[in-house]
Amino acid sequence: MENSYYNRLNDICASKNSHLCIGLDFDLDKIKNPNIKDLNSLESFIKDIIDATIDNCSVYKPNFAFYEKYGPSGMILLQNIVSHINKRSIVIADAKRGDIGNTSRNYAQSIFDYYNFDAVTIAPYMGSDSIQPFIDYSNKGIYVLCLTSNKSAMEFQYKFSDNNYLYEDVTKLALSLNRNNNIGLVVGATKQENMKKIRNLAPSLTWLVPGIGAQGGDLEKSVSISNSNKSIGIINVSRSIIYAGNQSIDDIRSAAIDYNKKINNFLN
Amino acid sequence: MENSYYNRLNDICASKNSHLCIGLDFDLDKIKNPNIKDLNSLESFIKDIIDATIDNCSVYKPNFAFYEKYGPSGMILLQNIVSHINKRSIVIADAKRGDIGNTSRNYAQSIFDYYNFDAVTIAPYMGSDSIQPFIDYSNKGIYVLCLTSNKSAMEFQYKFSDNNYLYEDVTKLALSLNRNNNIGLVVGATKQENMKKIRNLAPSLTWLVPGIGAQGGDLEKSVSISNSNKSIGIINVSRSIIYAGNQSIDDIRSAAIDYNKKINNFLN
Repeated sequence: MENSYYNRLNDICASKNSHLCIGLDFDLDKIKNPNIKDLNSLESFIKDIIDATIDNCSVYKPNFAFYEKYGPSGMILLQNIVSHINKRSIVIADAKRGDIGNTSRNYAQSIFDYYNFDAVTIAPYMGSDSIQPFIDYSNKGIYVLCLTSNKSAMEFQYKFSDNNYLYEDVTKLALSLNRNNNIGLVVGATKQENMKKIRNLAPSLTWLVPGIGAQGGDLEKSVSISNSNKSIGIINVSRSIIYAGNQSIDDIRSAAIDYNKKINNFLN
Repeated sequence: MENSYYNRLNDICASKNSHLCIGLDFDLDKIKNPNIKDLNSLESFIKDIIDATIDNCSVYKPNFAFYEKYGPSGMILLQNIVSHINKRSIVIADAKRGDIGNTSRNYAQSIFDYYNFDAVTIAPYMGSDSIQPFIDYSNKGIYVLCLTSNKSAMEFQYKFSDNNYLYEDVTKLALSLNRNNNIGLVVGATKQENMKKIRNLAPSLTWLVPGIGAQGGDLEKSVSISNSNKSIGIINVSRSIIYAGNQSIDDIRSAAIDYNKKINNFLN
């Protein structure tokens, strides 16, 4: 498919020579600059960060929680971020949505039609009919939560039966739904044997890999397992870039360049 | 606990003699009245519906998808609905959130602190650390997706191992986390043997039961299994009330009264 999400992602990663995703998950309490104290000043700061990193960053990923907590004004900020990126990079709505079909359709309208995101993350507990309305947008990307990097991921995702962990069942379902070449997986930077299992089950699915940086995941393993000649792994870094050094734009830009170089070293 | 969510729910249900939850999931395309064509007229219509049904309705449950699709203006509408109900009934944020702990904390701030909802629905795929920040709000209610009423619920929720379905594992985890007496389960009006299993595993957990009305679930079984002398089952009806008859306020009020009576008949 000429206009598939995967092709677009592929083109952007190639042209920028970057598999880096920056997580735009800001907490005003963690920002040292005393001038950044409300949504207006935060918006300017975020736009400056984007402009300083965009030549090294193929994907941005705002997590909705960090915007929703400010109510409707936070959603306007989110909208302004997508507009500011203006298709120069991919923007993933890290919203982890999922509901019965008719309701998921409304979520898809929100994220793709209203806010104009390029991709979304989906929680799979309710199964395929909760995912289908998103993948009907054939030019948008859908990253299904598969194996997450948090400690309690093991409680349900490792449930084992019929020779399969639940996260492997999710992988197989995602693969079976990938008719529009627009489904990917969220695979946390976690144990390499689990990452390898998922990659073997679905060699062609693109990955979004959180858990690097502050969360302590192994960058080399994450890059090498998530990427192949058939697939792209995008490595998300949030806190280690947006709060880098003294939090100046220069320090943030340097951290993005540095992460991108490290990722590229492991790719080659 | 004097101020627990469960006690508050119990008091409201007793004083209104109602276990009815009305799902406020409006679709402008399905509203027949030609004067209701934008968010302002929709807001007036929703407020009229609330005022016409509130003496028969203990709980309202707007699903976020139907508001998020309008962007920030939809979130203002949601906020105005919570304000209009003004603690006269419980309001559940049907948002199905869930993320790593630090992120879930931000979602909880959004739903409980900013929007002032009384309760929330949670998707459990990421496990207990994604649920904990919500249950730390000891006076708020948390309904964890357990067994949903959609067709593809069986794909993952029925995964069986160690003599347990996944939805039973979720039930047990919810029970183990219920130290603040504020956790409930979302149990769709589905096969009665499954509902009975869940009720037997967790006799004291309150339930939110979707799937009645347009979705075709069995009202009698849902009411009798979800309720006991230890627990409350709240029955959600959306489309069969908000689009009842000719969609006049009178018809909507009649449908709410009628559903409430039916539920009460099965309770006694």
